[in-house]
Amino acid sequence: MKEFDLIARLKTTLPTHDSVLAGAGDDCAVLNLGLPHDLVLFKTDAVVEGVHFTADTPPEKIGRKALARCLSDIAAMAGTPTHAVVTLALPTTFETTRVEAIYAGLNALAREHSVAIVGGETTANPDRLLLSIAMLGTVPRNRQVLRSGAKAEDAIFVTGTLGGSLSGRHLDFEPRLAEARWLAEHFTIHAMIDLSDGLAGDLRHILEASGVGAELLSSAVPVSRAAKQLARDESSAKPPLLAALTDGEDFELLFTIASRSAVPLLDAWRAQFPDVKLSCVGKITTTPGLRLRDERGLREFNLRGYEHFDS
Amino acid sequence: MKEFDLIARLKTTLPTHDSVLAGAGDDCAVLNLGLPHDLVLFKTDAVVEGVHFTADTPPEKIGRKALARCLSDIAAMAGTPTHAVVTLALPTTFETTRVEAIYAGLNALAREHSVAIVGGETTANPDRLLLSIAMLGTVPRNRQVLRSGAKAEDAIFVTGTLGGSLSGRHLDFEPRLAEARWLAEHFTIHAMIDLSDGLAGDLRHILEASGVGAELLSSAVPVSRAAKQLARDESSAKPPLLAALTDGEDFELLFTIASRSAVPLLDAWRAQFPDVKLSCVGKITTTPGLRLRDERGLREFNLRGYEHFDS
Repeated sequence: MKEFDLIARLKTTLPTHDSVLAGAGDDCAVLNLGLPHDLVLFKTDAVVEGVHFTADTPPEKIGRKALARCLSDIAAMAGTPTHAVVTLALPTTFETTRVEAIYAGLNALAREHSVAIVGGETTANPDRLLLSIAMLGTVPRNRQVLRSGAKAEDAIFVTGTLGGSLSGRHLDFEPRLAEARWLAEHFTIHAMIDLSDGLAGDLRHILEASGVGAELLSSAVPVSRAAKQLARDESSAKPPLLAALTDGEDFELLFTIASRSAVPLLDAWRAQFPDVKLSCVGKITTTPGLRLRDERGLREFNLRGYEHFDS
Repeated sequence: MKEFDLIARLKTTLPTHDSVLAGAGDDCAVLNLGLPHDLVLFKTDAVVEGVHFTADTPPEKIGRKALARCLSDIAAMAGTPTHAVVTLALPTTFETTRVEAIYAGLNALAREHSVAIVGGETTANPDRLLLSIAMLGTVPRNRQVLRSGAKAEDAIFVTGTLGGSLSGRHLDFEPRLAEARWLAEHFTIHAMIDLSDGLAGDLRHILEASGVGAELLSSAVPVSRAAKQLARDESSAKPPLLAALTDGEDFELLFTIASRSAVPLLDAWRAQFPDVKLSCVGKITTTPGLRLRDERGLREFNLRGYEHFDS
């Protein structure tokens, strides 16, 4: 908890100015630079050896993951990524082929999304590899989706299936950019976030930013095959539902929408994205806190998602 | 040399698009985002414990230095900084007061220059503290100054005095933002860079980007008191002139201008910035390479500046 408290305290002291429509504390900063039709999104994120990948991770996947995490943050604002700069901090001894492979993975994903890589710094980090990426994007004015807009009685939706990402998916997930833009174009999305800390943890970010609470229906939470497989394979693994609620790095979209739009959304989604699951997992409440409804009734859900330093 | 070769090779493979007027390889990327009057500058830079500061460096100065380095890169393009995002990678055990002090130093300098800090991520870097900053800025269209515009017969100028920065100045230098903007407003600056790798090393960056050579006049190189003091104090220290030519982290401006403007520039500068030294240290030549003229005549200068990983 120390880290979350520290970050919350630091946020209150940061210099700002009128051009900042959303600063630290959302998935991206939202800036009014004076473009006639668009706002600018700005985000930084880092992956670190031994934390977000291992010494054995194929280097192409390290570069891909570092960029994909930033793309997922742009998606969470319903934006379009445009430019990125890369800082690669290298251990004292490194293979140039490893560095080239990291960039190959990063560049390939950047090309898929028409992102220009406009700066590539290297520095020394003697003990381990660290890759920090900063990204710019755009979103049409008044179409950005913040964490703070959830309203009581909203339906809560999540894309894909959740849990067990660290057994593989975290290295090759597809950032939900097209899905998020489609959502913002066709529906009024009240609040959105990408899942990096786990469904429960990231939903709490929305609840805190919006000043509301939520009820989740445990039977509606889409549990991934990976989470089920892990629970079968290892007696010490989390039960699958708990994994789906608390595992980090799903990089799916979590959003809220007026409940009257829930059925039209599900219909339109199935036609547009037949291969991507969309689940209504609960509703926003005026009562603060996060509650889980299961066969035993309604109870407070007090576990946070996977608490790492990243916000 | 391995690092420079690797970086040069990586640069050729980076994805780009039409909005990128200058990408990796200049002090900042220069982007045409569609603002009516301005181009956007984008830069990332990192400082690492044990490389750019030590465990004993006062934390306020770590934060200050990290931001000041980015500001110096914005200055090198004659730009105005606007927004920054911060990634702070923290060792496994850290004092929250140290982190707050890092931000205090960073925030204070940001406020001086009206820079909004719009994102503050933290992540883990188990062995040492690393601070990565990405910055946005603006420059009026057609007033950006690249490294690639130096022309034969240009006069070469440098601000301030050089060498010995690591004995203290690297922690509290003032980025030359006002000076650079004034230069670009009142004169036609052909090429500019901020000195991070040393006068000789950074001049080579200009020469390579511009396809020209240069002659430096050794008696004109402004040697700092710190470089002279170090040479007096330690028999193993570099001779002061060599320190001024090759020490890193001066964060002064190095630029070239048509030789006919040299005298008017010196006169106007003295009136505008009476406390900041400006020195004409040599001239651009069609002959490639870097030559130094001293009492022994003209000779090739083959030592690179302080070669660290940063570009």
